[in-house]
Amino acid sequence: MQAQNWLIDFRGGTRANMYRVLKTVVATRSPYQEILILDTIGFGRALFLDGIPQSSALDEHIYHEALIHPVLVAHRQPKKVFIVGGGEGATLREVLRHNTVERVVMVDIDDTLVALAREHLGDWHQGAFDDPRVELVHADARGYLEKTSETFDCVIVDATDPLEGGPAALLFTTEFFKLAKSRLNPGGTFGMQAEATDIGVCEAHASIIKTLKQCFKSVFSYQAMVTFFGLPWGFAVASDEDIAARFTPQVIAATLRERGCTNLKFYDVESHQHMFALPKYVREAIEDPNVGMIIRDDRVLVVE
Amino acid sequence: MQAQNWLIDFRGGTRANMYRVLKTVVATRSPYQEILILDTIGFGRALFLDGIPQSSALDEHIYHEALIHPVLVAHRQPKKVFIVGGGEGATLREVLRHNTVERVVMVDIDDTLVALAREHLGDWHQGAFDDPRVELVHADARGYLEKTSETFDCVIVDATDPLEGGPAALLFTTEFFKLAKSRLNPGGTFGMQAEATDIGVCEAHASIIKTLKQCFKSVFSYQAMVTFFGLPWGFAVASDEDIAARFTPQVIAATLRERGCTNLKFYDVESHQHMFALPKYVREAIEDPNVGMIIRDDRVLVVE
Amino acid sequence: MQAQNWLIDFRGGTRANMYRVLKTVVATRSPYQEILILDTIGFGRALFLDGIPQSSALDEHIYHEALIHPVLVAHRQPKKVFIVGGGEGATLREVLRHNTVERVVMVDIDDTLVALAREHLGDWHQGAFDDPRVELVHADARGYLEKTSETFDCVIVDATDPLEGGPAALLFTTEFFKLAKSRLNPGGTFGMQAEATDIGVCEAHASIIKTLKQCFKSVFSYQAMVTFFGLPWGFAVASDEDIAARFTPQVIAATLRERGCTNLKFYDVESHQHMFALPKYVREAIEDPNVGMIIRDDRVLVVE
Amino acid sequence: MQAQNWLIDFRGGTRANMYRVLKTVVATRSPYQEILILDTIGFGRALFLDGIPQSSALDEHIYHEALIHPVLVAHRQPKKVFIVGGGEGATLREVLRHNTVERVVMVDIDDTLVALAREHLGDWHQGAFDDPRVELVHADARGYLEKTSETFDCVIVDATDPLEGGPAALLFTTEFFKLAKSRLNPGGTFGMQAEATDIGVCEAHASIIKTLKQCFKSVFSYQAMVTFFGLPWGFAVASDEDIAARFTPQVIAATLRERGCTNLKFYDVESHQHMFALPKYVREAIEDPNVGMIIRDDRVLVVE
Repeated sequence: MQAQNWLIDFRGGTRANMYRVLKTVVATRSPYQEILILDTIGFGRALFLDGIPQSSALDEHIYHEALIHPVLVAHRQPKKVFIVGGGEGATLREVLRHNTVERVVMVDIDDTLVALAREHLGDWHQGAFDDPRVELVHADARGYLEKTSETFDCVIVDATDPLEGGPAALLFTTEFFKLAKSRLNPGGTFGMQAEATDIGVCEAHASIIKTLKQCFKSVFSYQAMVTFFGLPWGFAVASDEDIAARFTPQVIAATLRERGCTNLKFYDVESHQHMFALPKYVREAIEDPNVGMIIRDDRVLVVE
Repeated sequence: MQAQNWLIDFRGGTRANMYRVLKTVVATRSPYQEILILDTIGFGRALFLDGIPQSSALDEHIYHEALIHPVLVAHRQPKKVFIVGGGEGATLREVLRHNTVERVVMVDIDDTLVALAREHLGDWHQGAFDDPRVELVHADARGYLEKTSETFDCVIVDATDPLEGGPAALLFTTEFFKLAKSRLNPGGTFGMQAEATDIGVCEAHASIIKTLKQCFKSVFSYQAMVTFFGLPWGFAVASDEDIAARFTPQVIAATLRERGCTNLKFYDVESHQHMFALPKYVREAIEDPNVGMIIRDDRVLVVE
Repeated sequence: MQAQNWLIDFRGGTRANMYRVLKTVVATRSPYQEILILDTIGFGRALFLDGIPQSSALDEHIYHEALIHPVLVAHRQPKKVFIVGGGEGATLREVLRHNTVERVVMVDIDDTLVALAREHLGDWHQGAFDDPRVELVHADARGYLEKTSETFDCVIVDATDPLEGGPAALLFTTEFFKLAKSRLNPGGTFGMQAEATDIGVCEAHASIIKTLKQCFKSVFSYQAMVTFFGLPWGFAVASDEDIAARFTPQVIAATLRERGCTNLKFYDVESHQHMFALPKYVREAIEDPNVGMIIRDDRVLVVE
Repeated sequence: MQAQNWLIDFRGGTRANMYRVLKTVVATRSPYQEILILDTIGFGRALFLDGIPQSSALDEHIYHEALIHPVLVAHRQPKKVFIVGGGEGATLREVLRHNTVERVVMVDIDDTLVALAREHLGDWHQGAFDDPRVELVHADARGYLEKTSETFDCVIVDATDPLEGGPAALLFTTEFFKLAKSRLNPGGTFGMQAEATDIGVCEAHASIIKTLKQCFKSVFSYQAMVTFFGLPWGFAVASDEDIAARFTPQVIAATLRERGCTNLKFYDVESHQHMFALPKYVREAIEDPNVGMIIRDDRVLVVE
C-alpha cells in the first residue's frame, strides 16, 4: 500500500473525518483566515476555511439550496436581498434563481477569498458575481448594516462558524439579529446557517433558535444532511410574518414554479418536508430550558 | 501531543471516519465474523463486525427505532414477529415494546456474537433476550424460513452489509424477499435495513427498493441519519396491504399510544415524517432506470 | 477496506507514527502515569506511558542492550548496580546477565506499572524481578539516592522523557548527576537513556551530554536505531575513570566473554562500534555552543 | 482542533508514517510513475514516487552522501562515472564534488521527473545538470548499458524500489550486476542503494548483498538512518579490487582532502565507521542461508 494524502478534520478530538486528497489547489492565508482549496477523490473540489470544511463539489448544492430557498419562498415577493458572507458565490447563485430578485448586496469581508473563488470555484458561483443585479462589497457586514439606510426583503447570513476569537461570533447574537431585523422591509424574512444538528452536538443550534425566538415572531429550525461534514446541518428562517402559511406544499410548489425555480437539484416540496420535520432530539434540545443559552454580544456563542 | 488510539474506517478508500478509542472490550473472531467491541470517547461503547461500524451507545436507538417502529406500525395488530439477525438484541428490544406482540422468533447465526452482546451490550438488549415471548435460534435464517411452516405478522431483516463472499448477500435477493413474503400472514409487513442513502452512495439502496417493488405491492423507502456511520441510513417497509393508510399522523399517533410506545427516544409522528420525506437525490436514484438493478440469487448485491 | 485500529503517535504535530493495533491488553492510569499495553501487528506487544512509545517486543532488546552493556562493560568489575526506573524489568534483565553482579537495587516509583509488567510483559523481564540479587523499591529514585548511604559500582537511569510537569524532569539535571556520582564507588560508571538523536531533534541529547560533561571527566554519547520509535535513540555513559580504555574491541570482547554475555541479541563489538561512531550531525550538535544548554534543577529540560 | 493535511505512508499495512503537508507543489503522472512533490512541515520539500518517499530537504544529503562517497572513495581515481536513475540530481551533485571526475553519464528513464526536479528541487541538484562534465540521457539504463561500448570507473545505481511489475526490478539481478561489472574499467567500483536494513525488514537487503557476492570479489553492506523513511537504509559497494584497503581512516581522510570533499554535511571518517559497523541483526541476516535469495532476471526481488 502506498502513501496517501488525507486531510484529517479532528472535530473536537473525539472523532474525525478523513478526506482523500489528490491535490492542493490553493493554500494561502488572507488577512482574515486560512484558505485551502483541495481536489479530493470522494468529494471533488473542496473548500476549507481555518481548517474547517465549508463546501464540496459533491454536495455544496444541498447546503446552498437548503440555506436559500426556504427564506426566499417565505417572502411573498423578494426583490432586494442582503447576503452576509457567502464568499464562494453559491449562495448568491441560488438567490439569483428567483426571478423576482432585482438587487442583491453581498458583503463578504474577505476579498482574497472571493477572488480565489472566482478563479477556482467556477462550479459554485457559475458567473453569479457578474450578474448586473449584484453589488459586491468587501467590508465587515455588521458594520455595513449599521451604517446603511437601505432596507431589504431578505437578509441571509452565510457566515463561518463562530470560533474562539474569530470574526463571525458577532453575527450570531441578539444584537445582530435585531439589527438585521431593523433593515428588513415589512414582510421581510431572515435566514441563516445555524450550526450542526448532530445528535452529539446540537446545543449551538438550540442556542441560535432560542435567540432568534427572542427577536422574531415566527422562527423555524430545519436541517439537511451534508455528507461533506459527515453530519446534518441546521438552518433557521425567521420573520415577524406568519411563515407557516408560506410553507404549505401548495404554496411552495406554486412559488417555485412562478419564480422559475423548478429545476433545483435538491430543494422541492418533499425535500422541504424532509428538512422541516425535525428528529425528536433536535426538537427536545430546542425546547429544553437547560440546553443552550440566549446569545448576546457580551456572551457570544463559541463552537470548537 | 501524545499518542492517540483511533479506529479508522476506510470507507472505500476515498473518505474515512476516525473513532477515538479508549479501550478494546472485545476483539475476537467467531466462526462467522470478526467481532470488535470498543469503548470510544465520542460514541461510548461501539460494535464493529468485520471492521464495519454496527452501532454505538450514542445513537443505536435511532437506528433500531427507525428499523422497527414503521414496520410494526404498518401492521394493524402484530402478534408474531420474525427477526433475521439483530445480534445486539436492540432490534428485539424495540419489537417487544409493542404490547400486541405475543411471540418473537429471532434467528441469528452467530451465537458467539449474541453471547458477547448479552455480556457487554447490556444497554442495547436491556434484558430482551430473557423475555418469555422470545425464542432465540442460532441458525441460518434463510434456511430456517425455508423449513419452518410457521407464519408471522412481521418479518424484519437486520442483517450486516452484503459483503463480497459474506453470508448476508442472500438476504437481499428477489428469491429471499419472496420466501419472506410466503411466511407472512395476510396483512403482514416486511421491514429491513436497506443500506446507505448517502448522496455519494445510494445505488445499493435503490437496488433494494427496486427489488422489493417486484415482490410487494406497497413499498416505502425511508432513512435516518446515523451519526456513528457519518451518513444517512436507508430502510424499507413493504407489504401487499396499503401501508400508506397506516402512515397518517393520526394513525401513527394512535397506534403508538395504544401499544404503549409513547416514550420512544427517537420515533414519533414528526420523526416519521422526517424519515419518509426523502431528499430529492434518493427519490431520483430510486426512479432512475439506469441506477441499480434487480437483485437475484445469481446476481447478488455487493457493497464495499 | 475495513476499519483498522491504529495508535497514532503525533510527535510534535509535524510527523507521526502509526501502529496497527490488534488489541488493548491494558489501559489504565496509575497515580503517576497513563499505562497502555497493546498488541500490535508490526511490533507485537508494546508499552506506552503517557501516550509515548516505550518499548516493543520486536526491538526492546536493542534499546535495553544498548542502555546496559556499555555502562557495565565500562566498569572493571560491577558488583553493585543501582537502577532508576526501568519498570518493564528488561533493564534489570540485562544487568543480571553480567555474572559479576551481586546486588541490584531498582527504584521505580510506579508499583502499578511494575505489577502490570510482571503480568503482561513476561518477555521483557523474563523473571528478573525474582532474581535473589534484586531489591525492588517503589519510591522516588532521587529521594531514595539522597537518603541512602549505600554506594554502587554503576548507576543507570532508565527514565521516561522529561515532559512538561512530569516527574522525570529532575533526573536530567546537573544536581541529579552530581548526586548520582556521589553514590558511585571509585571507578564507578553512570549510564542513561539520553533522548532522541534524530537529525530533526537532537538538541535535548546535546543538552544532556553537555551537562554530563560538567559532572564527569569522561563522557560518551552513543546511539542505536529503535524502529519502534521511528528514530535513533541516544544514550550516555560517563565516569571519572578513563572509559575509552575499556571500549577497545579487545576489552569489550574479553569482558563479554568473561561475564557470560556472549549470546546477546544485539550488542557485540561491531554493534558497539556502530553505536559509538556518531553521525556528523550528532557530533556537531554536541560541539556547537549554540545548541542546547546546561540543565539545572531551576532550568529543566523539557521535551514535547 | 482544525483539519490537518497529512500524507500517510502505509508501509505494508502494519505501521505507517504520517507527514504533515503544507502544500502540494506537484502532483502528476509521467509515463513511468506518479510524481508528488510536497511541502511538509517536518521535512520541508519532499519527493514521493509511486507513493513512496524518496527524499526530503531535511535529510536528502544523508541518503545521497551515503550512496556516493563510499563508492567514489573506494576507487583510486574515479574519472568516468555512470549513474542509473537519480532523477533529483542530488546523486549527480555528490559525484561532481570529487575533483577527479571528468565525465558523468546519467541515465534516467523519466524526463518528466528530471524536468520537474530542475524546476522544483533546486536544493537537490544545485545546478548539477548544467555541469559541462555531465551527459544526461533519458533511456532505459540497462538497455543503454547493454548497447554502449563505453566503460567507466564507477557505476552507481540510484533506482526506485523494485515494486511488483515496476521498471526497477531488473536493476537488482545477477544478470544486471554482471552487465554493470562488464562496463567497469580495471579497478572499477560499483555502488547502489540496497533497500531497508530495518530490524523488521532487512531480507531484501540480504538478498541484494548475497547476489552481489556472486558477482564481485569484495562486497560491503552499510547503512544510514534516513529519518524521512523512519528507518535505516542499506547501501552496497562492490568491486573486484580490495575495497577494505581504501576504507581505513587514513585513506578516507586523505582521499576526501585530495578531492576537495572536506565540507560534506554528513560523510566523514566517523560517519563512515558508523555506517560500515553493522548492527548484529543485519550481519546475521546477510550470513543466514535461510534469509533472502540470489536474485535473477527470472526470479526478481519484489518489495511491497
